[in-house]
Amino acid sequence: MKRSVAQIRELLRVPSAGGGAVDLAAIDPRGTPGIPAELSRREAKAWARERVAQLGGQLATWQEMLYAGAQVDPDAARRVLLVLQATDCGGKDGTIRRVAGAMNPQGLEIRSFGPPTPQELRHDFLWRIRRALPRPGHVGIFNRSHYEDVLIVRVESLVPEPVWRGRYDEINAFERELVAGGFTLVKVFLHISREEQRERLLKRLDNPTKHWKYNPADLAARARWDDYQAAYAEVLARCDGPDAPWYVVPADRKWYRDWAVASILAETFAGMGLEYPSGDFDVAAERERLLAAS
Amino acid sequence: MKRSVAQIRELLRVPSAGGGAVDLAAIDPRGTPGIPAELSRREAKAWARERVAQLGGQLATWQEMLYAGAQVDPDAARRVLLVLQATDCGGKDGTIRRVAGAMNPQGLEIRSFGPPTPQELRHDFLWRIRRALPRPGHVGIFNRSHYEDVLIVRVESLVPEPVWRGRYDEINAFERELVAGGFTLVKVFLHISREEQRERLLKRLDNPTKHWKYNPADLAARARWDDYQAAYAEVLARCDGPDAPWYVVPADRKWYRDWAVASILAETFAGMGLEYPSGDFDVAAERERLLAAS
Repeated sequence: MKRSVAQIRELLRVPSAGGGAVDLAAIDPRGTPGIPAELSRREAKAWARERVAQLGGQLATWQEMLYAGAQVDPDAARRVLLVLQATDCGGKDGTIRRVAGAMNPQGLEIRSFGPPTPQELRHDFLWRIRRALPRPGHVGIFNRSHYEDVLIVRVESLVPEPVWRGRYDEINAFERELVAGGFTLVKVFLHISREEQRERLLKRLDNPTKHWKYNPADLAARARWDDYQAAYAEVLARCDGPDAPWYVVPADRKWYRDWAVASILAETFAGMGLEYPSGDFDVAAERERLLAAS
Repeated sequence: MKRSVAQIRELLRVPSAGGGAVDLAAIDPRGTPGIPAELSRREAKAWARERVAQLGGQLATWQEMLYAGAQVDPDAARRVLLVLQATDCGGKDGTIRRVAGAMNPQGLEIRSFGPPTPQELRHDFLWRIRRALPRPGHVGIFNRSHYEDVLIVRVESLVPEPVWRGRYDEINAFERELVAGGFTLVKVFLHISREEQRERLLKRLDNPTKHWKYNPADLAARARWDDYQAAYAEVLARCDGPDAPWYVVPADRKWYRDWAVASILAETFAGMGLEYPSGDFDVAAERERLLAAS
């Protein structure tokens, strides 16, 4: 039942599409790749929940190492940026609560991107993104991101096609720049089925404490489901790269989704070679000074 | 053993000093006001830890109401700002991890203030503070704050006395402005003893994973312990008010500290009259639309 953690990123990495669009229909939103096959559904859920708790502790330690590194040497400071994209009800908020909730809030910077403000619209689409990047030593999470500018913007024809089409290259150049500047990027598409979205929208309507999350416009977006899937399929193919990888996480099952995102993050941190910085002082001498002064 | 939660804020509110300085020496850093007296030390610790877990769930709910309110009506949006001050090793980081860790990281904005950068020094001392204020609907936590400009700045004589003395009024005016703009302020001084600081500094030196938190300059600050206590004593007296209250939390015992800060926050939220915003749509009609489109 032991499995190398390093497999999850490979299992969920967006499949190569040879320059075209990724075949999202071939990826089952109810799938559970990486979960030991011998477990019953019930056992798998318990197993995943327990693993998420364990992974949370590890993530918190890596996060502290990242943070500590920036305190000691701000110039060399690295950062991690998790980009979360999904259709409505895809589970972005829940993923953040469950996965980021295990980390130390002090080292986290979470930003949501809604419709651009008039001020933001007066600038290039990456302007507001640059202003929201995590500070050195921090883990940033984007709840939606610059990818909206090739998703909703495309589906709703908010700018002419040559403009949004040009953004694939702009985004790739921007992300290369981030990586060169010390960022580690992790991009996750939470992949739910159209049926699951309906169930979740119904649940929102049936729960008054969730009404603030519901917008009648969500149904208009739902009516364009296939257009959104096509837009995602092209984004995933055009903006994936070794240093800016996209992962497609089957997300109909919340316990699987949380485990998969936590595992992807854990593997990413594990590959960064983080460690606690050593102090540049003489420990024994400092101990003497402290005790001498009482 | 049931006690009204509303008592903790009264128990820990900074005592009135009649315009002078608060007598910090009269407040026992190992005290546990508000903990049921009939409990043994061991029972009290378990009781407090359990209460913190419960309070965490309540804090998360209030925080979501605050966040939801800002999503629905950005103009009316309120914010909560917790200011944490303490001497070195006072437990600011631990308090944030334990208390804020229970909330949803998506609604939190945590900022630490170190020595000002050259850019920050070219501006008024409140400039960097204003830029770090939480967005509408968010809970902000300041790990150190504008109060450093009447604490270390005073003790180390970084500006002339008339300048830092004038800042009490500037801070009070600034905080009145925040409250008028929809902020709810909670200011906490974590009160530890000089002996406890020594123990914690020794622990840092003895643990290589904590060396990044140690700075030989900490011992110079420790040597000015009485000067810092005097600076705090005057701050607590001069910058306390009904809408910008200071609480002195005995913090030698970490379990007490966490419980006290969580309780103060919970009482503060409870007094804000928060609730989930209702949707401005017809729930039954939306349900019909959703099901009709399948």
